[in-house]
Amino acid sequence: MQSITTRQFLLKSRWGWSSLSNSGLRFQQTQTATKGLDEYNKPEVITEVPGPETKKLLKETDAIQNTRAVSLFCDFEKSKINYLVDADGNKLLDCFQQISSLPLGYNHPAILERSIQSAAIMANRPALGSFPSKDFPRLIKNSLLRASPSGLDQVVTMACGSCANENAYKSLFFWYMRNQRGEELPVMGDEAFISCMKNQPPGSPELSILSFDGGFHGRTLGALSTTHSKPIHKLDVPAFDWPTAPFPKLKYPLEEHERENAEEEARCLAVVEDLIEQWKDTRPVAGMVIEPIQAEGGDNHASDDFFRKLRNIATKNKIGFICDEVQTGMAITGRMWAHDYWGLETPPDIVTFAKKMLSGGYYFSDEFRWKDGYRVYNTWMGEPIKLVLLEKVLDVVKEQDLVFQAENTGHYVVNGLRQLEKMFPELLSAIRGRGMFIAADITEAGKRETFVKKLLQKGVLLGVCGDHSIRLRPSLFFTPAHADILLDKVEETAREMRS
Amino acid sequence: MQSITTRQFLLKSRWGWSSLSNSGLRFQQTQTATKGLDEYNKPEVITEVPGPETKKLLKETDAIQNTRAVSLFCDFEKSKINYLVDADGNKLLDCFQQISSLPLGYNHPAILERSIQSAAIMANRPALGSFPSKDFPRLIKNSLLRASPSGLDQVVTMACGSCANENAYKSLFFWYMRNQRGEELPVMGDEAFISCMKNQPPGSPELSILSFDGGFHGRTLGALSTTHSKPIHKLDVPAFDWPTAPFPKLKYPLEEHERENAEEEARCLAVVEDLIEQWKDTRPVAGMVIEPIQAEGGDNHASDDFFRKLRNIATKNKIGFICDEVQTGMAITGRMWAHDYWGLETPPDIVTFAKKMLSGGYYFSDEFRWKDGYRVYNTWMGEPIKLVLLEKVLDVVKEQDLVFQAENTGHYVVNGLRQLEKMFPELLSAIRGRGMFIAADITEAGKRETFVKKLLQKGVLLGVCGDHSIRLRPSLFFTPAHADILLDKVEETAREMRS
Repeated sequence: MQSITTRQFLLKSRWGWSSLSNSGLRFQQTQTATKGLDEYNKPEVITEVPGPETKKLLKETDAIQNTRAVSLFCDFEKSKINYLVDADGNKLLDCFQQISSLPLGYNHPAILERSIQSAAIMANRPALGSFPSKDFPRLIKNSLLRASPSGLDQVVTMACGSCANENAYKSLFFWYMRNQRGEELPVMGDEAFISCMKNQPPGSPELSILSFDGGFHGRTLGALSTTHSKPIHKLDVPAFDWPTAPFPKLKYPLEEHERENAEEEARCLAVVEDLIEQWKDTRPVAGMVIEPIQAEGGDNHASDDFFRKLRNIATKNKIGFICDEVQTGMAITGRMWAHDYWGLETPPDIVTFAKKMLSGGYYFSDEFRWKDGYRVYNTWMGEPIKLVLLEKVLDVVKEQDLVFQAENTGHYVVNGLRQLEKMFPELLSAIRGRGMFIAADITEAGKRETFVKKLLQKGVLLGVCGDHSIRLRPSLFFTPAHADILLDKVEETAREMRS
Repeated sequence: MQSITTRQFLLKSRWGWSSLSNSGLRFQQTQTATKGLDEYNKPEVITEVPGPETKKLLKETDAIQNTRAVSLFCDFEKSKINYLVDADGNKLLDCFQQISSLPLGYNHPAILERSIQSAAIMANRPALGSFPSKDFPRLIKNSLLRASPSGLDQVVTMACGSCANENAYKSLFFWYMRNQRGEELPVMGDEAFISCMKNQPPGSPELSILSFDGGFHGRTLGALSTTHSKPIHKLDVPAFDWPTAPFPKLKYPLEEHERENAEEEARCLAVVEDLIEQWKDTRPVAGMVIEPIQAEGGDNHASDDFFRKLRNIATKNKIGFICDEVQTGMAITGRMWAHDYWGLETPPDIVTFAKKMLSGGYYFSDEFRWKDGYRVYNTWMGEPIKLVLLEKVLDVVKEQDLVFQAENTGHYVVNGLRQLEKMFPELLSAIRGRGMFIAADITEAGKRETFVKKLLQKGVLLGVCGDHSIRLRPSLFFTPAHADILLDKVEETAREMRS
C-alpha cells in the first residue's frame, strides 16, 4: 500500500471512495482487476529517456526513413499490460498504449495464447472479399457482431482506420445516389458510366461530406479532406472542396457551464443547417462525419444533446450520418461505443472503427448496404487473424467487466486531476473525460512539451493532442492503483515546474 | 509421368525443352522445385463448384455483408502450395492465389514455422511510426531493404496497396511543393497554413497526378481518382479532376507487331506531353503513376522503350514518376521488380508495393524523403509481423532461385497457351506474359464467364481482368508440371466449348 498523499486525502474527504462507483462491491473488483496478471509494480527509469540504445536505433532507422515522429523503441517481450519497457530497459507506465491501439495492454496472457494457437492463420492471408475461410461467418459473428452498435447489423472489415472512413464515405455516396435515382445503378449506356472513367460528373458526382473544424478522420486523400486538426497533416496535399462546420468550443467542466455551452452548440448546429442549404446547388452534402469526442484535434467534447440534434438534422435533410469511433470505440469511454451515451432515437447510419478493435472496418444499417459486387472491395479487406484476437478480447472485456471498470476508473482519474488542477492552476486546466478517455489542457502556453518530457523521465508515458492538451488512452486494465502512480507523478512534476 | 498430348508434342518439336531456359541444368531444377513440399498431385472436384457447403456459408455471410464478389470459401488448413481446398473438399489448382497475394502458396512449411515462432509479435501491434520495436531497424533491413529496387534506399510500410499509393501521392506533392518553394514548409504565418485547414489553395494546392486509361491503383478516394479500369469501381464516388492519358493498345504477340505498336506508343507519349503542357495553368501535373503491366485493367503491356521514354518525360518536366508494382512486384514477372526489365537510366522516384510483399508500402529515393515529422504517418503504418514473414519469403526465393523459375516456367506456359491459341483461335487470343504474369483474351465475346466456370469445374482456378481476359497469378512454386495440368484442362474445356 502507498501512503496517503495530500491529493488522495482531498479526494477521499470530498467524494469518498464509494461515490466513485455505482456499487461499492464493484469498485473493490476494479481495484484488483490486474490481480493474477503479471505486471510491474511501478515505473522504473534507469537512463535518460530517450536513452543511449534508443538513440542508436533512431540513427539506424533514420537512414531508412524519416524518424521525427518516433518517441522510443519498445522491448515488447519485456512489456507487461500497463508497462512498456523501452530499448534501454526503462519501465514506463504507458497511458497511451500504442496510440490507443492495445485494448488489454502488452502481452495479455489470453491474447498471447490465442496468437500462438492461431499462428497458422497468419501464413495464409486471404483475399477476404472473394475467398474467405470457411470459418469466416462464424468468426465475424463471434467477434465484430458481438460488439455491434444497436441497430447496425451489417459490417465490413478494412485494413486500417483511414480505409474504414474512405469506404464509409463511398457507401454513403452510393446510398445517396441510389436515393436520387431510385435504383442502385443507372441504366446501361447511361452517360454516368462513361463520365466516371474520366473523373467527370454525372458519373463522378459533385457531392460532399460535411466535417468539423478540429476533426480527424485519417490521412488518405478522401479522409484527409475531412480532417481539420493540424496544418502539418494537410499542407501541400490537394483536397476536395467540401464544407467544414465549427465544432463547439465548450468550457470545462461541462456541468458548470451548461448555459453558455448550450448556446455555443446551438450556434454550431445552425451553421451546419446553413451549410447544408448553401451547398445544395454546388456540391450537395451527402452526409456528415463526426467523432463523439474529437481526439487528435484536442479531446474536444460536445453534449449528448448536441449529437442528438445533429443526428436529427441529418435525418431531416436525408443525408447520411457517420460516427467515427476509431478512437472512442471499444469500451474506453465507459461504453462499448461512445455514442451509446447519446440516447439516439435513430442510430448512426455508419459507425467506423479501428485501433482497439484490432481491425479497421465499419458497421452500417441495412439501408446503407450496396447491392452490387465490387463496390466496396479491395484485395485484403482487413485480415481474419485480427478477428480471431478480437474474439478473445471481447471474452476478457465481458468476463472482467472492463466497460464498467473504464467508467469507474475514469471518474477516479478525473477527480484526481481536478484536485491537481486546483493545486496547480498554472499547469492544469479543462480536465475532461468520459471513462478513461481523459484529457487536460496545459494552461501555460508552450509548457506542454516540458511537462510531457519531465513525466516521461519519471516513467509515465502520455499522449498529446490539439495544440496544448495531454491525453490518456490507457489499457482497459488501468486501475485506480495505476491512476495513483500517474497522479503522484503529475503532482511531483507540477511541483518541480513551479519551483 | 503424364502421356504426351498433342500440345506437348507440338511444344517439344517446335521449341524443344532446352530452349525454354537459359540453361538446361536449371530447367531440370525448376521441374523439381516443389519436390519435398507436401502438395496434392492433381485437382480433384467432388461436388459442383460452388458446392452445397459453400452455398450454405454464402447465405450465412450474406446476412452480414454483400457477398457478390465471393467466389468460394477456403479450407486453409487443407490447402497446400498450389492447391486450394474449398469448403466442400474440392482440391483446386489455384492459379490466382488470393489475388496474387501468396508468394509461396498455401501453408509453405517455412512460412508456417516462422508464423508460429513469431506469433507473440501479433499480440502487441505497435504504432510503428512512433513506438517501433527495438528489432525494427534490423527487421526492415533483413526484409524490405534486401528487395529494394536499384537506386531507392528509403522505404515506409503501409497497411495495404491503396494506402501505399495514397501516401506515395502525398510524398510526391510534398516534393513538388518543396521544389516550388525551395524549402520543406512555408514560413510561419503563411496563408498556406490557414487555407489548407479549409481545403483551399494555396495550402491545399490545385495539383494533379496523371494516370492512364485502364490503370488500377486502388479504391480509396485519391487512389480511385487515378484508377480507370472499370466503371463499377468509380461510379457515384466524387473524384479529383486530374488528367488521364491513353495507355498503348498493343497487338500481341508484341514481337510480331513491333512497328505498329511503336507507333501506338509514340501516340500515347505525345498525349502525355500535351497533357502536362495543357494542365500547367489549371492543375499542374506533379507526377504520374503507372503499372509496368496494367493488371486489373486487362493485363495490358507496353514496351520497355515506352517506359524509358515515359520516365524521361517525367524527368524533363520535373514531375515525379511513380511505378505501381503492387501486383507486378516480388519475382512473379521473372524479375524482382517488373521495372527491372526497362533498363532505366534514372530509377523511378517511387515504387509502391503490397500483395506478394505481404505488407503495403513504398520505396523512394532520398530526394523524395520528407523532412518534417507526421507528414506521412498513421497509427499502425503497416505491421512488423508482415516483415518477419517477408524475411523468410525472401530467404526461400533466393535459396530456390524462384525469380529465375518464374521467368522460365512463364516461357513454358506462354508457349503452351500459344499452341492452344493456334488450335482454338475462337477461344484464345492475345497470349501475353512476363514470367508467370500471364494473360489471354477470350476471343468470342461473352464466353469468358463460361470458360472460367467450366475450368473451375475441372479443378483449375483462374483470375479474370479487363472485359474479356483471363489472368494467371500463380505461386512462385508453379512449375511446368502444374502448367501441364493447366494446359490440359484448358484444352479439354476448349474442346467441350467447340462441340
